[in-house]
Amino acid sequence: MTTRTDRPQRADARRNVEAILDAATATLARDPDASVNDIAKAAGVGRVTLYGHFENRGVLVAAVVARAMQDSEVSLRGVDLSGDPAAALVRLIEATWQVTLRYGALVVAAEKSLPAADLAAAHDEPRERVERLLGRGRDAGRFRADLPVSWLVTTMHTVTHAAATSVYAGELAADQGARAIAATMLGLLTPPGEVVPDLDALRAAG
Amino acid sequence: MTTRTDRPQRADARRNVEAILDAATATLARDPDASVNDIAKAAGVGRVTLYGHFENRGVLVAAVVARAMQDSEVSLRGVDLSGDPAAALVRLIEATWQVTLRYGALVVAAEKSLPAADLAAAHDEPRERVERLLGRGRDAGRFRADLPVSWLVTTMHTVTHAAATSVYAGELAADQGARAIAATMLGLLTPPGEVVPDLDALRAAG
Repeated sequence: MTTRTDRPQRADARRNVEAILDAATATLARDPDASVNDIAKAAGVGRVTLYGHFENRGVLVAAVVARAMQDSEVSLRGVDLSGDPAAALVRLIEATWQVTLRYGALVVAAEKSLPAADLAAAHDEPRERVERLLGRGRDAGRFRADLPVSWLVTTMHTVTHAAATSVYAGELAADQGARAIAATMLGLLTPPGEVVPDLDALRAAG
Repeated sequence: MTTRTDRPQRADARRNVEAILDAATATLARDPDASVNDIAKAAGVGRVTLYGHFENRGVLVAAVVARAMQDSEVSLRGVDLSGDPAAALVRLIEATWQVTLRYGALVVAAEKSLPAADLAAAHDEPRERVERLLGRGRDAGRFRADLPVSWLVTTMHTVTHAAATSVYAGELAADQGARAIAATMLGLLTPPGEVVPDLDALRAAG
């Protein structure tokens, strides 16, 4: 008969975990080098409690990233990827950028503290979405077919992260990020011998 | 009167440092996760000797990268950057790729263990070279002027590193790296409304 005492404890534990994840997300988004102490303080829990739920900083960052990715997935699944593949790509880039801004420097925190393999796994679903769209664009002759699709997907991922890092470094204005990524990708994906589409014309047409 | 005993000791120390740097370069190029023990063994020195010269693994990796960058600089300074900026860019990418292949997975080792700021500083000279060439290409109307030059330089750096990482991950053949980077950058740099140049035609003309 441990139910009566266990239930409130479990509810407390769940609340603590949520509070820690919320605080870690907000704290790391402001400062990717934030310590476990900073996060515990922001969450209003002790270090012992925090370490009871998350063995070390890496485990905590991984959990924060996992939750952020889930939330991002919900946003990205809602993007209309039908019609002209180039216009669809611009819509996907704009939605991806909103997600990137929401989590701010979390991307930087993740890149600094997570093994590359974990980061790659966290990007499986976005990668597949981009891969399908780029494949459709190639079949339609809109995107280049002289380079492997996997390489084009890598450039999309890489250019997006470079934009996030550039904003964090103060080299690019946050509201210019989506434009820089979209303009860059439209050029990068245009087949040799074809004309690079103008981003504004494409937006107006879409 | 310590000269007689000091000189051979200094010569020994220099030889040890060179042997350690050579061994570290070769070992890390094969396995970016190679330990200090692996490197000491390959250099034929004891751990104590190695730590006498390099305080920790990070300091050693930093020294290896610094030497590799110096050597790379000598190769890259020899590239002819005159004439058509697009053809010059392809020559610079091909020379950069040869340097990247020579140091193999060293790039991965560096990215895993060096702070981002140190890596960025190590790229100052290559960045300036690329910036001058891209600026000249913009002035000539050959490269796009609708995005900041600093962003274009970042994409060049990012795409090159992505190719090195893709080769290391087995996703791209090593001999396809320069082609992938050059084709990608030619598209990326083409002004909207202009035709993306064909890499082979450009090479034949240059």
